[in-house]
Amino acid sequence: MKLTLKEVANKLNSAEKILVTAHVSPDGDALGSTLAMCLALRQFGKTAQIFIDDKLPPYLNFLPHLDEIKRPQEGEKFDADLILLLDTVIDRTGNIRSLTDAPILNVDHHVTNTGTENDLYLEPNAAATCEIVFDLLKEMGATFTKEIATCIYTGIATDTGFFKYQSTTPKTLRTAAELLECDVEPNYISEQVERRTLNDFIGIKHALQTTEMFFGGKVAGIVVDEQLSKIVDTTEGIIDLIRVIEDVEIAFVLTYKEENATKLSLRSKNVNVAEIAKKLGGGGHIRAAGCTFHTNLDEAKETLLKTLGEYF
Amino acid sequence: MKLTLKEVANKLNSAEKILVTAHVSPDGDALGSTLAMCLALRQFGKTAQIFIDDKLPPYLNFLPHLDEIKRPQEGEKFDADLILLLDTVIDRTGNIRSLTDAPILNVDHHVTNTGTENDLYLEPNAAATCEIVFDLLKEMGATFTKEIATCIYTGIATDTGFFKYQSTTPKTLRTAAELLECDVEPNYISEQVERRTLNDFIGIKHALQTTEMFFGGKVAGIVVDEQLSKIVDTTEGIIDLIRVIEDVEIAFVLTYKEENATKLSLRSKNVNVAEIAKKLGGGGHIRAAGCTFHTNLDEAKETLLKTLGEYF
Repeated sequence: MKLTLKEVANKLNSAEKILVTAHVSPDGDALGSTLAMCLALRQFGKTAQIFIDDKLPPYLNFLPHLDEIKRPQEGEKFDADLILLLDTVIDRTGNIRSLTDAPILNVDHHVTNTGTENDLYLEPNAAATCEIVFDLLKEMGATFTKEIATCIYTGIATDTGFFKYQSTTPKTLRTAAELLECDVEPNYISEQVERRTLNDFIGIKHALQTTEMFFGGKVAGIVVDEQLSKIVDTTEGIIDLIRVIEDVEIAFVLTYKEENATKLSLRSKNVNVAEIAKKLGGGGHIRAAGCTFHTNLDEAKETLLKTLGEYF
Repeated sequence: MKLTLKEVANKLNSAEKILVTAHVSPDGDALGSTLAMCLALRQFGKTAQIFIDDKLPPYLNFLPHLDEIKRPQEGEKFDADLILLLDTVIDRTGNIRSLTDAPILNVDHHVTNTGTENDLYLEPNAAATCEIVFDLLKEMGATFTKEIATCIYTGIATDTGFFKYQSTTPKTLRTAAELLECDVEPNYISEQVERRTLNDFIGIKHALQTTEMFFGGKVAGIVVDEQLSKIVDTTEGIIDLIRVIEDVEIAFVLTYKEENATKLSLRSKNVNVAEIAKKLGGGGHIRAAGCTFHTNLDEAKETLLKTLGEYF
């Protein structure tokens, strides 16, 4: 951690036009933290705009002001005097850097953050970037509207698997308690996040049929090929169905993205999958990590199994 | 609420031999609350013994001291001067009353508690009986060992669907935070509760293939026939996979039990399925109910769809 929370607040206070961004393949913590920060910055009279260089996942459609999030267009510029980079490093934001040369203020909770930015607030003990955002907004004296609280709660709840992961601390739960006092409806958020389209369900049903067990049942994997990838919208939810199988240490989903791009999601009960993902050119958390193989599905699977073979 | 928490504590302090019990078909809150109370009462030098008149569900096998829970035997007596009745009314405890004539002290959070017991502490705003047990043990000055905290946390987590249900309050989350400070491992508990055998998983995978949609997608149903019923251990977990489908109002699972016995489980997002189950000779909660048809699977399905047809 290079900056203190107070210094982060000061840097935001000094800026007027702030571009807020997070990683591609945005999840609840990426969208929750960017939306909460954007809404709060506007409370202080700032110009704040979120850019995310990717499609937004439908299961987060319920988040307030989601339709204001922009995706950078070819050659587009954005007049900013600060980039607030949340929940990731700049390398994982797609083409955000081409929008502006403004300096970067980086706030993250990923232990794998490479520390490239000088202005970095990194708190790996936070269960979610949204947990840091909560403290930051308190420091800044922001008003916790129901909208802001809903965004922060969603980020914390989704990044902890609804308070199931080891990353959940007493502070995480006390933060969530305070957010409920801002009128957050936990049942509404969980229903929205867990809602699935019929198409998604059909995709999951088909994807489950591809389940294979490896290394004597210690690894369970699902392969979403090109055809299946057209109906499977997100691997969230699928991977947990195989992770909970008795004796399974690591669960993976390999998903076709393009001819030579295969996405890997890894989840574990105890094994450090961040380490495995790092070996494969990716990153993440101890029990939830991933990477993108620049090969086809079959080659990606072969590489993955070879790497996993070193562990089992 | 007829007693105060202090009066409940006083009644427990005055007793020496305490029979602790909860409802048949015991869940995480029933077992968590009885175990936590039993362990704490022993801290105070009391003789405490749990009796539950039913089988214990395998997914709760990890709870400490579970093997000390007894099931009343034909004609068995237990020398007690108090029955601590948790999470239910005496009518739902099976044959517990036959063990002893001792007076009953009833602690519960179910709004449906009929208030039959004079010594009743009822707090319908508590998300779980374990949430009350936490306050009660504080009042009594018990030591929150990791074992006791794990039992209480399990009750709260399972009764709130891991903090997803509307019943989750700021107090629920703050209680959970304090329990984490007693060395509770949230990931261990969620892993244990959600653990599935490979056979279970294969059963779920096959059962999902039978999913049918009815009434323009408002009802989703799964049929577990005789063959499938041999590998599907529980419909828990299956039914939620179809309940979360967009536009689905009611999810059902019909399961072969015997030649002329078919079990129905109903779950809904908003519809009162307790009412539907009642019409079919069963009962339950507003969003989770069921019944048993004394017919074969096909006839049961026909009857069910006819009844659901009145709603859609």
